[in-house]
Amino acid sequence: MVSKPMHRNVILVGCKDEKGLVHRITGVLFEAGLNIVRNGEFVDGESNRFYMRTDVEGAVDSAGLCRALAEVLPADAWIEMRSPRPKKIAVLATKEYHCLGDLLLRHANGDLNAQICAVLSNHEVLGDLVRTFDLPFHCISHVDMARDEHERLLIEQLGEYELDYVVLAKYMRILSPDFVRAFAHRIINIHHSFLPAFIGANPYRQAFERGVKIIGATAHFVTDDLDEGPIVAQSVLPVDHRQTARDMARAGREVEKIALARALDLVFADRVVVVGNRTIIFD
Amino acid sequence: MVSKPMHRNVILVGCKDEKGLVHRITGVLFEAGLNIVRNGEFVDGESNRFYMRTDVEGAVDSAGLCRALAEVLPADAWIEMRSPRPKKIAVLATKEYHCLGDLLLRHANGDLNAQICAVLSNHEVLGDLVRTFDLPFHCISHVDMARDEHERLLIEQLGEYELDYVVLAKYMRILSPDFVRAFAHRIINIHHSFLPAFIGANPYRQAFERGVKIIGATAHFVTDDLDEGPIVAQSVLPVDHRQTARDMARAGREVEKIALARALDLVFADRVVVVGNRTIIFD
Amino acid sequence: MVSKPMHRNVILVGCKDEKGLVHRITGVLFEAGLNIVRNGEFVDGESNRFYMRTDVEGAVDSAGLCRALAEVLPADAWIEMRSPRPKKIAVLATKEYHCLGDLLLRHANGDLNAQICAVLSNHEVLGDLVRTFDLPFHCISHVDMARDEHERLLIEQLGEYELDYVVLAKYMRILSPDFVRAFAHRIINIHHSFLPAFIGANPYRQAFERGVKIIGATAHFVTDDLDEGPIVAQSVLPVDHRQTARDMARAGREVEKIALARALDLVFADRVVVVGNRTIIFD
Amino acid sequence: MVSKPMHRNVILVGCKDEKGLVHRITGVLFEAGLNIVRNGEFVDGESNRFYMRTDVEGAVDSAGLCRALAEVLPADAWIEMRSPRPKKIAVLATKEYHCLGDLLLRHANGDLNAQICAVLSNHEVLGDLVRTFDLPFHCISHVDMARDEHERLLIEQLGEYELDYVVLAKYMRILSPDFVRAFAHRIINIHHSFLPAFIGANPYRQAFERGVKIIGATAHFVTDDLDEGPIVAQSVLPVDHRQTARDMARAGREVEKIALARALDLVFADRVVVVGNRTIIFD
Repeated sequence: MVSKPMHRNVILVGCKDEKGLVHRITGVLFEAGLNIVRNGEFVDGESNRFYMRTDVEGAVDSAGLCRALAEVLPADAWIEMRSPRPKKIAVLATKEYHCLGDLLLRHANGDLNAQICAVLSNHEVLGDLVRTFDLPFHCISHVDMARDEHERLLIEQLGEYELDYVVLAKYMRILSPDFVRAFAHRIINIHHSFLPAFIGANPYRQAFERGVKIIGATAHFVTDDLDEGPIVAQSVLPVDHRQTARDMARAGREVEKIALARALDLVFADRVVVVGNRTIIFD
Repeated sequence: MVSKPMHRNVILVGCKDEKGLVHRITGVLFEAGLNIVRNGEFVDGESNRFYMRTDVEGAVDSAGLCRALAEVLPADAWIEMRSPRPKKIAVLATKEYHCLGDLLLRHANGDLNAQICAVLSNHEVLGDLVRTFDLPFHCISHVDMARDEHERLLIEQLGEYELDYVVLAKYMRILSPDFVRAFAHRIINIHHSFLPAFIGANPYRQAFERGVKIIGATAHFVTDDLDEGPIVAQSVLPVDHRQTARDMARAGREVEKIALARALDLVFADRVVVVGNRTIIFD
Repeated sequence: MVSKPMHRNVILVGCKDEKGLVHRITGVLFEAGLNIVRNGEFVDGESNRFYMRTDVEGAVDSAGLCRALAEVLPADAWIEMRSPRPKKIAVLATKEYHCLGDLLLRHANGDLNAQICAVLSNHEVLGDLVRTFDLPFHCISHVDMARDEHERLLIEQLGEYELDYVVLAKYMRILSPDFVRAFAHRIINIHHSFLPAFIGANPYRQAFERGVKIIGATAHFVTDDLDEGPIVAQSVLPVDHRQTARDMARAGREVEKIALARALDLVFADRVVVVGNRTIIFD
Repeated sequence: MVSKPMHRNVILVGCKDEKGLVHRITGVLFEAGLNIVRNGEFVDGESNRFYMRTDVEGAVDSAGLCRALAEVLPADAWIEMRSPRPKKIAVLATKEYHCLGDLLLRHANGDLNAQICAVLSNHEVLGDLVRTFDLPFHCISHVDMARDEHERLLIEQLGEYELDYVVLAKYMRILSPDFVRAFAHRIINIHHSFLPAFIGANPYRQAFERGVKIIGATAHFVTDDLDEGPIVAQSVLPVDHRQTARDMARAGREVEKIALARALDLVFADRVVVVGNRTIIFD
């Protein structure tokens, strides 16, 4: 006998809106003997597009169900079936370890809802931390190497795992469009600011000089436009005049950790759908 | 020609969970020629109950639709159809006017999503404020009067309006079970605290003496158990040692305003379903 | 016998940092028979400047005390004595009334810590609201008028009151440097965004299209650089994909009210010192 | 040549309020050749007590300075001099490792402002985690042991380190008054709730059943009254009906981490003064 949790799946659908969609979709689910445990639907009035996320319970023939859904939906429909198994991820980092460390701890604690397959870095400094958690650490230095050559090595290494997502936990190198394309819609980054943001180097210095009273961080999917991908989560912390630019950077680390953790919670639970440059969060 | 917004309705359904419910419900909606604009569903795993809230677009025969839904749902089903017209409400207050004033302003500004039919108070002090907003103010003093006699007068006055909800905006008298029953599930109160709370008189004095760093407020439906009804919204503000009990009371007024406004937003948009002593918020 | 509250004063001092400053300042206060009730001090390590805010209790000869302080402080010292009387303010608005209404309510409720002498607008639409609170409303239309001519009329009207501060509660016209100079360091504005911000028209439309998850507002002193003056307070509210640009604008109104109220609380209590383009908040 | 940071010290003073205190204290500091970098003062109007926290720069004869201060202060004065060296702490935990893990990471990252001398637990389960960070882990089981005997062993072990503070990071055993006395005012606990709180076992179950919309955590000093000591920091997170009691417990772990980290930041920077059952936070 198989316990119920083995038979939970998430179905995600997007298509142009028209009458009867929910009825047709749920008809297919009913025919398949599935029970709907939770259902979210959203129609984007601007684009007249329909989005739905459904948690179903019951044994599923994935391919067959998707075919059956495609038959009742408009031709442009996007249909995805996600099993509830923990996502397989790799984490890219550079030297800072507040975000990476937080992920490793949650992972060890069973609170991450994902399996960290490996950590990659262009520096050695985080290796010891990763190894204490018994996880593979690959240092791939970028020194004396062209960007595309370095990225080729990264992609090669990442290719050894069947990854669902690549998490940039303070990876401080710009990724080329080729790299982004290789993991399209599957790279999540934590950005040291709200967006729009202080442009350029040393944003906390700028925040300090501007005398801001709140600092924030933004977790987003990575697209070709640097720091311009779809936002998943944002967080804030209050700061004040007594905090130096260095104190603000420390507060920034806190808020980065929080925003990234929140975003990964949502992404790994299949609650995020990217629509153009925005996200729909089925929370 | 009737403009679209005239044809928006909200359908709320609750019943024991079983397979096929969403399909059956949406089938009825499709037959009725309705378009689903937004749909929320929640299954309470503990009680095995199914709850659904649907925004539909299109002309509706309300009674007919409810009958048709009842036919496809379990016998215990609760079905409600809510038109999108602004709710009709009365506000009860005593002497404080931060909450009442905030409601009057939102009302005047078109931001309340409800029509304030009247304000009732057991004191005269708020009368001028209410009248400046051109709204009926009824002072029904409780002096020299038994509780049931006073409440009888209140109910009589409230009965002159066809009210959807009664909002207690710092109404400082305890309501009898009879009063609560007269407006069952339709009275919303703002409570000066988180719940659980400092019990007894002068809660901000207690909060001050306990040296709390955060104060809160709770907006909830009123039931027979004083301050124990289903919670709709809670808010917090930070406080510190420099704040006297009086300062904390002032911060308390702020947070009460915010929590009450948030709760009324949800209730007036038909996004709140009461289940036992809890609320489901379809936000 | 004079009651104590009559004899509360705030002393603000700024000068280059050197040893013994607090001792010398408090020596003067002690000589003057004053009791220090609360004292805040901050040395800005970057500029090596010293700032102090002191609440004193006791009868004061203001001019004499400032002279005595000047004698013990560096030549560049800035010394201010502020009596605890409510500040006299004027509010400038255009057509929106969420911020103005909130100020009027707090004013009526004794929660503003300032006296609203008048409300000025370039439109008539807010007149009724202001008059219900029995306050002077001056409509000074800008139609068919050069900017400098319009501002001359505003300044003339404002000149009839001895104002401590001018509050821009959604005043939607750009102020010229001449106007700003006329009320240097005394104009507080509420800005519809964090800073840095979406540039240009319709920021909530931009926020919506960018898919932000948090929106904010910034209350700041006005300088010649539009929206670039020293920040006093910032607030945020969460938003999500279900909110249209219009919903975000509504949430924006909420957060503007909150940020402006917080900033005015601080400014009117003499807790804010402007240092270059930043503020020190002695909270 | 000694670098400046070596010569930073914090002076904390508490005594009954009277005129001239700041002047006298700062006079002593000036005589000693010290520069005041930051100064906070607070007079508790209720008890007529004066509290001051001063950051000074310069070489100090600690004992001599305290004597000199005692001479100019009322007889009841409490005077403390704290060097800026990182505090020495031990952490007590049981089986949960979200709080402990967070502390270990901050410690490794140089963000804790304290030196973790050892981790003690009544279970073995956290040993591996602690050892990966190269820190001593002492498992002192309570099985088959009287409470006082168990505590004697704990105290003995703790006595091997010269501890400034003992941090209870989800240590799930009640401490006897004797233990508390042994580390009076030096034990910091993280409590799984706001205070006042759901009493008794399984608070998240209770929070779930009550349908709360916000959960919180409280970091406080431990006194004889269980969970009733002076509060240092409180934090909150929003929750909703979709979260099971188990989800709420997970959110509770997040908020516990945040509240404890905030409290330790303040305590380890000597910014917290305990006054009766309240804390003054010189932030």
